[in-house]
Amino acid sequence: MSLDAAATKPHEQLATALADDLSAVNDMIRARMASEHAPRIPEVTAHLIEAGGKRLRPMLTLAAARMCGYDGPYHVHLAATVEFIHTATLLHDDVVDESKQRRGRPTANLLWDNTSSVLVGDYLFARSFQLMVETGSMRVLDILANASATIAEGEVLQLTAAADLATTEDIYLKVVRGKTAALFSAAMEVGGVIAGQDDTTVQALFDYGDALGIAFQIVDDLLDYGGTKAIGKNTGDDFRERKLTLPVIRAVAAADADERAFWERAIAKGRQEEGDLEHAMGLLSKHGTMESTRIDAIGWADKAKTSLDVIPDHPIKAMLVDLADYVVARIT
Amino acid sequence: MSLDAAATKPHEQLATALADDLSAVNDMIRARMASEHAPRIPEVTAHLIEAGGKRLRPMLTLAAARMCGYDGPYHVHLAATVEFIHTATLLHDDVVDESKQRRGRPTANLLWDNTSSVLVGDYLFARSFQLMVETGSMRVLDILANASATIAEGEVLQLTAAADLATTEDIYLKVVRGKTAALFSAAMEVGGVIAGQDDTTVQALFDYGDALGIAFQIVDDLLDYGGTKAIGKNTGDDFRERKLTLPVIRAVAAADADERAFWERAIAKGRQEEGDLEHAMGLLSKHGTMESTRIDAIGWADKAKTSLDVIPDHPIKAMLVDLADYVVARIT
Repeated sequence: MSLDAAATKPHEQLATALADDLSAVNDMIRARMASEHAPRIPEVTAHLIEAGGKRLRPMLTLAAARMCGYDGPYHVHLAATVEFIHTATLLHDDVVDESKQRRGRPTANLLWDNTSSVLVGDYLFARSFQLMVETGSMRVLDILANASATIAEGEVLQLTAAADLATTEDIYLKVVRGKTAALFSAAMEVGGVIAGQDDTTVQALFDYGDALGIAFQIVDDLLDYGGTKAIGKNTGDDFRERKLTLPVIRAVAAADADERAFWERAIAKGRQEEGDLEHAMGLLSKHGTMESTRIDAIGWADKAKTSLDVIPDHPIKAMLVDLADYVVARIT
Repeated sequence: MSLDAAATKPHEQLATALADDLSAVNDMIRARMASEHAPRIPEVTAHLIEAGGKRLRPMLTLAAARMCGYDGPYHVHLAATVEFIHTATLLHDDVVDESKQRRGRPTANLLWDNTSSVLVGDYLFARSFQLMVETGSMRVLDILANASATIAEGEVLQLTAAADLATTEDIYLKVVRGKTAALFSAAMEVGGVIAGQDDTTVQALFDYGDALGIAFQIVDDLLDYGGTKAIGKNTGDDFRERKLTLPVIRAVAAADADERAFWERAIAKGRQEEGDLEHAMGLLSKHGTMESTRIDAIGWADKAKTSLDVIPDHPIKAMLVDLADYVVARIT
């Protein structure tokens, strides 16, 4: 660990504590995305994987395994698996959203074509599948199969729920689990399973990842409307894409007739006019839904932290606790 | 088996012999493609799965398992797995090819959108993965993980090899394995593995599926240039899409300078003119590459049949032998 750990961010502390493991994961990712006959594959994946994501998801797997005292080789396979699944979903998401930028760089579908994004995403899924099989753990495969189904179902649900004012908080939570929390929780869980932990511990790891992922996504959705303090992130993308996120779902539920008509026009019908985003933000403020959503996010971060109560003290456990605080720090 | 088995086609004989199993597979497919929260999923998959494909791939799994005396429940899971993988690749292929029709009906990407095709394909992959895990066989998972990687790599390879006159017969074979043979061979192989067969038998099943799939795809590619006798299939799609299939690869290899210039313009540069398809077909005929490709296809069908020599006699074995003949009957 670095000497000035207190001054660095929790995910940077984790990256430092897990530096050797992360380096092994990066080597494995590079080796496994190679394709002798189809050089387009490493081109596309390198563009995305080398783009400097924080490797948050594979780090969760490494952290869970190390915190549980694991000293075998397979946490590296599983961390690479998790990053491949994440990268594959990003490639497919960019086709779905017709995105032009990701992590500040042009998306693969813009640089190459939708076709490459779809097929290379499929290739990464297949590669991740091979990596999991190498661990020889049927329980790991079961967890990741279920996570994959939750992710895919959540993506379809998000698509069909967009612009639908009848979207409930329950559906929102399912979308959030699909988009973010299912891979966070599976990443933690498999780290514990590969380390041979008991059911209580494995459940605690799952709960931490689930709650952290939900907090993470709610914060993201809040910041899309400026959060409590805007910090350079583009505001209003979700509004323009007519996505029903928590602050809006709650404002729609509390709307009077005039406000309902506004949401019908701007979100359900998608006939957006100049000044609509500002009007929407005014309604979120009027009904206090930014604040109530903020409180929910902090509640999920707290749940993540308390989930780890059953785990014995460990330097990495302390970093995971800090990470939960850090995820909501942008809105507190 | 039906009384007039001799008069029916081999795949119909198999469908009759395996009718109860196929019915269980159809039930499982319907149950597993349901999604409580995302009704778009069964809509899209039903469109494709109910469209009356021949269920050839799941039938191979059922046939292999039954021929090997299997009487457990998991051949049904594996047959449904294989059909889900196949359907998922069709959904993604249609996005890639921007297809408008599949099995005589509008494609899902035309009826809904590319987005639904990508995400529902991902959902089916995830569901297939859950089904395999239920079998509890790590060897089955290994086979299907490797098949998935071969399929995905072959698809990317086909994309990058299109319009490339340097495409070799070796690359063509890899594309063919990815497009068709990898799932045929895996479908056969897992049927034997689940039935607890020895390595020799499992290898024979793999070899049968591999050779049958290659014969099947070569015939398809031949018929795209009219085959020896055209039978209503649209001619020239591969030429227009600048795909390098076996008859063309061989004609390019044998081309003189003028012919080479023709292939450069029509395939490499894609500047196709009126009469080019007819000219191309003339060159295939001149160099005898339709005939040599036809002989290759028959050779693969023969290899499929002899692969089964190590398997004891069984009514289903006889149907699989007939099926290999049937696959090349359209060009003989």
